[in-house]
Amino acid sequence: MKAVRVVGYHENLRLEDVDKPEITGPHDVVVKIGGAGVCRTDLHILEGQWAEKSQVRLPYTIGHENAGWVAAVGSAVTNVAEGDKVILHPLVTCGLCRACRDGDDVHCENSAFPGIDTDGGYAEYLKTSARSVVKIDDRLEPSDVAALADAGLTAYHAVAKSSRRLRAGDRVVIIGAGGLGHIGIQVMAALSPAEIIVVDRNPDALKLALELGAQHGVVAGGDHVEEVLTLTGGHGAEQVIDFVGEGGSTSEGLRMTRRAGDYHVVGYGENVDVPTIDLISSEINIIGNLVGSYNDLAALMALAAAGKVTLHTAKYPLDRFQDAIDDLDNGRVRGRAILIP
Amino acid sequence: MKAVRVVGYHENLRLEDVDKPEITGPHDVVVKIGGAGVCRTDLHILEGQWAEKSQVRLPYTIGHENAGWVAAVGSAVTNVAEGDKVILHPLVTCGLCRACRDGDDVHCENSAFPGIDTDGGYAEYLKTSARSVVKIDDRLEPSDVAALADAGLTAYHAVAKSSRRLRAGDRVVIIGAGGLGHIGIQVMAALSPAEIIVVDRNPDALKLALELGAQHGVVAGGDHVEEVLTLTGGHGAEQVIDFVGEGGSTSEGLRMTRRAGDYHVVGYGENVDVPTIDLISSEINIIGNLVGSYNDLAALMALAAAGKVTLHTAKYPLDRFQDAIDDLDNGRVRGRAILIP
Amino acid sequence: MKAVRVVGYHENLRLEDVDKPEITGPHDVVVKIGGAGVCRTDLHILEGQWAEKSQVRLPYTIGHENAGWVAAVGSAVTNVAEGDKVILHPLVTCGLCRACRDGDDVHCENSAFPGIDTDGGYAEYLKTSARSVVKIDDRLEPSDVAALADAGLTAYHAVAKSSRRLRAGDRVVIIGAGGLGHIGIQVMAALSPAEIIVVDRNPDALKLALELGAQHGVVAGGDHVEEVLTLTGGHGAEQVIDFVGEGGSTSEGLRMTRRAGDYHVVGYGENVDVPTIDLISSEINIIGNLVGSYNDLAALMALAAAGKVTLHTAKYPLDRFQDAIDDLDNGRVRGRAILIP
Amino acid sequence: MKAVRVVGYHENLRLEDVDKPEITGPHDVVVKIGGAGVCRTDLHILEGQWAEKSQVRLPYTIGHENAGWVAAVGSAVTNVAEGDKVILHPLVTCGLCRACRDGDDVHCENSAFPGIDTDGGYAEYLKTSARSVVKIDDRLEPSDVAALADAGLTAYHAVAKSSRRLRAGDRVVIIGAGGLGHIGIQVMAALSPAEIIVVDRNPDALKLALELGAQHGVVAGGDHVEEVLTLTGGHGAEQVIDFVGEGGSTSEGLRMTRRAGDYHVVGYGENVDVPTIDLISSEINIIGNLVGSYNDLAALMALAAAGKVTLHTAKYPLDRFQDAIDDLDNGRVRGRAILIP
Repeated sequence: MKAVRVVGYHENLRLEDVDKPEITGPHDVVVKIGGAGVCRTDLHILEGQWAEKSQVRLPYTIGHENAGWVAAVGSAVTNVAEGDKVILHPLVTCGLCRACRDGDDVHCENSAFPGIDTDGGYAEYLKTSARSVVKIDDRLEPSDVAALADAGLTAYHAVAKSSRRLRAGDRVVIIGAGGLGHIGIQVMAALSPAEIIVVDRNPDALKLALELGAQHGVVAGGDHVEEVLTLTGGHGAEQVIDFVGEGGSTSEGLRMTRRAGDYHVVGYGENVDVPTIDLISSEINIIGNLVGSYNDLAALMALAAAGKVTLHTAKYPLDRFQDAIDDLDNGRVRGRAILIP
Repeated sequence: MKAVRVVGYHENLRLEDVDKPEITGPHDVVVKIGGAGVCRTDLHILEGQWAEKSQVRLPYTIGHENAGWVAAVGSAVTNVAEGDKVILHPLVTCGLCRACRDGDDVHCENSAFPGIDTDGGYAEYLKTSARSVVKIDDRLEPSDVAALADAGLTAYHAVAKSSRRLRAGDRVVIIGAGGLGHIGIQVMAALSPAEIIVVDRNPDALKLALELGAQHGVVAGGDHVEEVLTLTGGHGAEQVIDFVGEGGSTSEGLRMTRRAGDYHVVGYGENVDVPTIDLISSEINIIGNLVGSYNDLAALMALAAAGKVTLHTAKYPLDRFQDAIDDLDNGRVRGRAILIP
Repeated sequence: MKAVRVVGYHENLRLEDVDKPEITGPHDVVVKIGGAGVCRTDLHILEGQWAEKSQVRLPYTIGHENAGWVAAVGSAVTNVAEGDKVILHPLVTCGLCRACRDGDDVHCENSAFPGIDTDGGYAEYLKTSARSVVKIDDRLEPSDVAALADAGLTAYHAVAKSSRRLRAGDRVVIIGAGGLGHIGIQVMAALSPAEIIVVDRNPDALKLALELGAQHGVVAGGDHVEEVLTLTGGHGAEQVIDFVGEGGSTSEGLRMTRRAGDYHVVGYGENVDVPTIDLISSEINIIGNLVGSYNDLAALMALAAAGKVTLHTAKYPLDRFQDAIDDLDNGRVRGRAILIP
Repeated sequence: MKAVRVVGYHENLRLEDVDKPEITGPHDVVVKIGGAGVCRTDLHILEGQWAEKSQVRLPYTIGHENAGWVAAVGSAVTNVAEGDKVILHPLVTCGLCRACRDGDDVHCENSAFPGIDTDGGYAEYLKTSARSVVKIDDRLEPSDVAALADAGLTAYHAVAKSSRRLRAGDRVVIIGAGGLGHIGIQVMAALSPAEIIVVDRNPDALKLALELGAQHGVVAGGDHVEEVLTLTGGHGAEQVIDFVGEGGSTSEGLRMTRRAGDYHVVGYGENVDVPTIDLISSEINIIGNLVGSYNDLAALMALAAAGKVTLHTAKYPLDRFQDAIDDLDNGRVRGRAILIP
């Protein structure tokens, strides 16, 4: 089959012919790829930023946001069958460690990460595990939802966690209405009655945010912390979710957080640097957020099937992978680039 | 001032001239009534059903669903001021007992209940406490929201509690789309992404339910338990909220509940009668629900201000109280009857 | 190998030579049995009470409370190795269904139950799955803890759930200080600072309860509900855990429950029969309880390793299985009978 | 009556004759002081560190850790009566704001703080509110428990919050076994079955820690992070509670925290300075902690009455206040200095 592979760092990806993956274990699932998201992380992989961390051996097939149809299953697979439309949880987890057994499979002690440390989805077929395939509704197409597998799942996870502490009359600030943020806004509007305030430098992103369910857009242009305080009666918001994590957003986000509230870190880059006395006197929490669990992905797919979360995509045939990479690198993709084998 | 009073059980209410209530304590608040809901409980009071339980001394002013404007406040009142538009939490609570301090003021050990055990709101003015007045948004009118003070608050409380255990992809069954149920449906649609299945005998009520945010209406006509099981993949729903509580709804509701799910009792009448082995083998919970807390009422008012919960009302001037009572007793009120002084 | 098998209902068990189980799948684990608990359920199985429910084909090997040493593992097993001392979770679960992925493996949609619907542990070896084996501390012996696998796990699960709603100054009533109850008391004393009130008909059981960490023992002799109310300032207890579930304990337990409290059903037999108005006016919850999860069993083993939960056992060699059965049936076992191959 | 007052910053306290406080409002409570804790914060007040923040007008009576007997009550006080033995919650809260109504009175929007911004307890009598007095058990003496009112309550609050996420088999690290820490250890041992690891520079403090219920003591002498990692199987602890908050303890504490775990800030001084990517990749939370609520104090008093939390005190008559201050300032107090009028 055809697969797009990393053959060297600081080199272009290369389309090659490789063996189609086969079922060897009872929980194996081979998926015919319907769409594979092209993510900024893929650019970082090519720059070698992940080489040491992932310890992956080159060449390998890249692509960690995947959806498609089940092509073959191992003997012990009970949750999907050949032909099922599926999206793939980004991790292949063991189901045996304490974290997996707690339903917190993201912290699996023995996980693999296709597209990062083993063969991924820029290909015709991908081998994963029964523990990683989520059946999707008939109304959804793999190529439309593939990018929800990682970016969307991360946004969902943080927003769902945050929404559990919100009630009607509360406010939530979402910092950053870009790739993850605009999914986060849709998820928050679906899960919570709280008033949504979105902060972004880009007025167009704020306009979209209001269409997607936010009540207020605040341009990050200098006075935005004060504007948020004004919108929240001087208190700050009960919940703040920071999809940026750099350029000063962490200290601004903490200043926007109400006493006893939560500041969620999702985007990353800079350090959180805060006096302990400020955490204590206001009793604020700083909440870390990784990608979501398998059941989080199932919930996100339920939102997508109900039309509550949608994603703009730009689709490319698999062999035009270089165009997709270049377009992403040069800011020419609106929404998410998707490769279609 | 004018007040409509209970002068004897099995007698008609009587409009009388009584002293206007005055501020005597520092937390007192006198409210000029803008609307008082006429509730089926008021009929039961006149039949003497509450006499022993409430120990109220006749004559007294009836009416326990009240909203209006603050007319005067005691010296220690900091949360409202003269002229504020307010809705009244049905209980006057102490703020000192363990339950009040836990934010669970409904279980206050020293509460009064205006309209039930002390003077209520079928009157021009009502005296309550600073602990019972919730400021409402400028967009809301007291006469439009008064009936949310008790009926609406009960529905909100059960639905909010239930919604905390629901996520996207889950189902919730609401049994009974009448007075409380149709508020409950609106609240559920605002708080949760779960699929809402409504069961009612009345096809018109189901039609309204679908307009208010439900996804499925099931006529309670014999096969409704099976229909719910079909709609839930044979599993039953994660949450079932029973606003009926009689005529067999409790055993039916339990049969509609998924393993590890919750069956919420809100309406009452019959007994819950269930083999312990059924509770154990399915690990189902039966959840009791009383009226909501002060902060629940504040949250419900936030939903009302956002247009997410609306209520149909039939308004009567205070001196036409007997028409309102008669219309309610004869099933001629659509939505909720409200007296306006 | 030797195994004690059900050869017919209303017939005695029979010791037979059967094939030793072998590894056939990658998650298989074969355990050399170190101890198998003899449970009252085993008597019920012989009476045919489980025949229809379990659909087990005779003959098969009985015994569902098992511990021992890992003898062999399949190729995909990462959590245990040959020689490890283990206790067996009573269910063999799939790890793929929604419940398993939520950490709620007890509600697995595809589970097997060795000793009930497939071969169990009255034998030299048992085949189970990697998902069912919990490594135990070096200080623990399989024959000492085997009976915690099911009876102990059920008690742990209910008590742990209940303890999450208790704080210092609260009270919990434990009804029944027998097999499950006396483990429950130890678990409660380890998990919670609440005052423990134990109700039992047997003064000796109450004496033991006080030694195990209870603060009050109340003889179930007619006035016990009133005694509990007196011990709780007239309010009832915040939590009530009923390990009996028959002979009137359900209505008594509900009367002992404080407003907004939980009544936990663990023992079973009679019906819970309660007016809906009582559930509503007091806002009490009735909580169902099944056996605990894998991680619950791991936590219980941590308590056992720390010496916080101990169990009295009477040990029998495997070929004296009939004596163990007879002793249990005739009330001659103090604590728990254990078969040792 | 006699009262010890701040007459100027950088001046000694002065014993003066002032008017005994009188009941003027219906929720007032006048308490005859039985013991007033001498706290390091009192030294800071004299140095003027709180002048701007508290805006207190001099002279005023210092002392914010108070217990005694109710001497007089206002007309609306229902929870205590003359003669009752009480400890005083450090804040006087309104009972009307959203936080108070949520049971989160520490975040009251209208609170006073006797001893900090109004007259405190280095005196014969103190006026507080019905919302601030917690009745204590007959077995407890005001002078023995006074210091639990603030220091103890802070430790209780953080530990209770943390303990809700711990189960048997988990580990918790307590950094700092000094004033707050040694109360925290006792509380943790009472509330949770988790293994307690205490880190402190002082081997004597660690020895005491083990007597109070810790399982492991680790000397903070360079390798302590590695030692904690070794004690936790290389994972770090599920919960870390930092009572120090300076000298590098924040970065060390974060390194000791397991994936998906919580690092609690209680002590303060330095900044938390952590890369956002570390918070994300490990999904760790940083939890702020202020003093506890009224109901937290009631729970702590239940632990004290049960003998589960004890405090070493050095008692001084009120007129020897300067000796107490000097002894504290010079490190001559073991446990807590208490003034007794």
